[in-house]
Amino acid sequence: MFPEPVLLRAKEEFLDWQGCGLSVLAMSHRGKEFISIAEKSEQDLRQLLAIPANYKVLFLQGGASSQFAMVPLNLLGQKSTANYVCTGAWSDKAIQEAQKFCRVHIAASSRDTGFKHIPNPHDWDICKDAAYLHYTSNETIGGVEFHYVPDVDGMPLISDMSSNILSEPIDINQFGLIYAGAQKNMGPAGIAVVIVREDLLGNTPSTIPTMYDLLAHAKSGSMLNTPATYNWYLMGLVFEWLIDRGGVEALEVSNKRKAEKLYRVIDDSGFYTNPVDPSGRSRMNIPFLLAETSLEKTFLSEATKENLVALEGHRSVGGMRASIYNAMPEEGVDALIGFMIEFERCYG
Amino acid sequence: MFPEPVLLRAKEEFLDWQGCGLSVLAMSHRGKEFISIAEKSEQDLRQLLAIPANYKVLFLQGGASSQFAMVPLNLLGQKSTANYVCTGAWSDKAIQEAQKFCRVHIAASSRDTGFKHIPNPHDWDICKDAAYLHYTSNETIGGVEFHYVPDVDGMPLISDMSSNILSEPIDINQFGLIYAGAQKNMGPAGIAVVIVREDLLGNTPSTIPTMYDLLAHAKSGSMLNTPATYNWYLMGLVFEWLIDRGGVEALEVSNKRKAEKLYRVIDDSGFYTNPVDPSGRSRMNIPFLLAETSLEKTFLSEATKENLVALEGHRSVGGMRASIYNAMPEEGVDALIGFMIEFERCYG
Repeated sequence: MFPEPVLLRAKEEFLDWQGCGLSVLAMSHRGKEFISIAEKSEQDLRQLLAIPANYKVLFLQGGASSQFAMVPLNLLGQKSTANYVCTGAWSDKAIQEAQKFCRVHIAASSRDTGFKHIPNPHDWDICKDAAYLHYTSNETIGGVEFHYVPDVDGMPLISDMSSNILSEPIDINQFGLIYAGAQKNMGPAGIAVVIVREDLLGNTPSTIPTMYDLLAHAKSGSMLNTPATYNWYLMGLVFEWLIDRGGVEALEVSNKRKAEKLYRVIDDSGFYTNPVDPSGRSRMNIPFLLAETSLEKTFLSEATKENLVALEGHRSVGGMRASIYNAMPEEGVDALIGFMIEFERCYG
Repeated sequence: MFPEPVLLRAKEEFLDWQGCGLSVLAMSHRGKEFISIAEKSEQDLRQLLAIPANYKVLFLQGGASSQFAMVPLNLLGQKSTANYVCTGAWSDKAIQEAQKFCRVHIAASSRDTGFKHIPNPHDWDICKDAAYLHYTSNETIGGVEFHYVPDVDGMPLISDMSSNILSEPIDINQFGLIYAGAQKNMGPAGIAVVIVREDLLGNTPSTIPTMYDLLAHAKSGSMLNTPATYNWYLMGLVFEWLIDRGGVEALEVSNKRKAEKLYRVIDDSGFYTNPVDPSGRSRMNIPFLLAETSLEKTFLSEATKENLVALEGHRSVGGMRASIYNAMPEEGVDALIGFMIEFERCYG
């Protein structure tokens, strides 16, 4: 989903960026125009998340999926083990990829409940001789989310925040590295952000592909090769829009309100259910089931008529899912709620 | 450089692609709308280059620079050596990266003339026990280009065609793998094309990052993870524009004419010189020097006044350089020629 005001602005300056006579698409990534776009976007992201000066911010191609490999390849150093917390499909992917490069120690998992809760921090079994601990802050398929930052006693903490970055304030100092593909909460597919504490870089074996070397990217200002310029620009527009809306503090209030009202309708009904333990429910992705599975098709087709789309649950779990990222306005959630209540009245 | 008609069309359908009510930027890569865009772009590229059915066409992130590593990682198989031909800065980069993964045998090089010619094919020293032979079909900095396809006697032939793909017809059957970043001749930065004979895939060690596995990308239709959807769409528009213009056959005629008239002005003058051996001159990038180096700054500043930009030679070689890719209309070349003749009249 893309914020409407960002799309309108991008269209307006599509052929001529800020009167320079050039489309962003036609800019050289080394020209002063694009350099100013790149610098502004980094500045804005630093402002939004209060990123300290000792953290590098990288804008890379390859999505979060590339980071599944780049994290161990860059951060293992002399260690052979890394801690991973498994809370769903995306953690699983990160784990499978990491297993190519190191011994993965599962510090905690919610597989026993079918990924319907966040493991209690008191029960974690963290391997102390590991290079880092990795967790996925929000799982889009199961709809579970961490509402606290794991305490790892000084070990570098790594988080895949692809689906909830910029949805609330975070304390960057608690993290060694954060990565996120842009297409959920930051804009266009084709670009990913990595925020990394600079002292963690530089331990990369020379045998890894240069494009997987985070230090090389950091040294070149994310211009080791031609970056995804237009995607970078669009993401910068999203950052400006977020700042205009009051930053992540304001977004947090709005995201919380959007999620709470949707969960309330589900919980107050005997017709809809959300399977996730309340303490680990996601504010971004809200899966729900109908009392009668046979009504799912009707629900989806009638919703589509009301212009409520993309409500089908992931094929691996079925049911429904409302994804209410930053760009989803509160009116969108209200419209869905209105439809759900009406649908229950007719079919419940 | 981006073709003007493509930019106009992209702007027109920026908010609403073909009346579906959705911006391409807001499409899911798994939705039927984007799937149709992806399929059409592959079809069009297959038509433009007459790509046989036993070749896979991939649309990947990471640019040609990622292919510098992916080529050896995917194609070495049981071999430990690969042939490389060195004709300039881009071949050099491919070679340096390949050296991380195999023994590089330099089958031919033009380093002795400062990369001012294409090595004579009769003098090549090809290692027969190597996995493949790699060459860079056009070097943007030196302005040298292959005007023939190397004869490698059945060995897989690999070519980095980033800067001259789609500028003329080629016989894909002569190649094992072709790769190209999009931003020179195919459209936007942030996407690259790989064309690979399918029997060459599947020899990848399990220890390489999944995102570097060409077979995995091929099996998933370039959707192993979320692809760079908007970049892919824009590249598809460029393919349609190329077909409308008469395909690569028509482009070849136009590119040849554009280059020939510019070289003629240079060669006929005592004021401008092109340092490259005529048999290896690039049709895409035409470097030239002024008789008096001290006039270079004046040349560039007066050219800018005439809206003739991006004429500065690469910092590693100096002088001037005209990059006249597919998207550069013949009138652009005519304008440059007019300016060059006038400048020589004033300062020569």
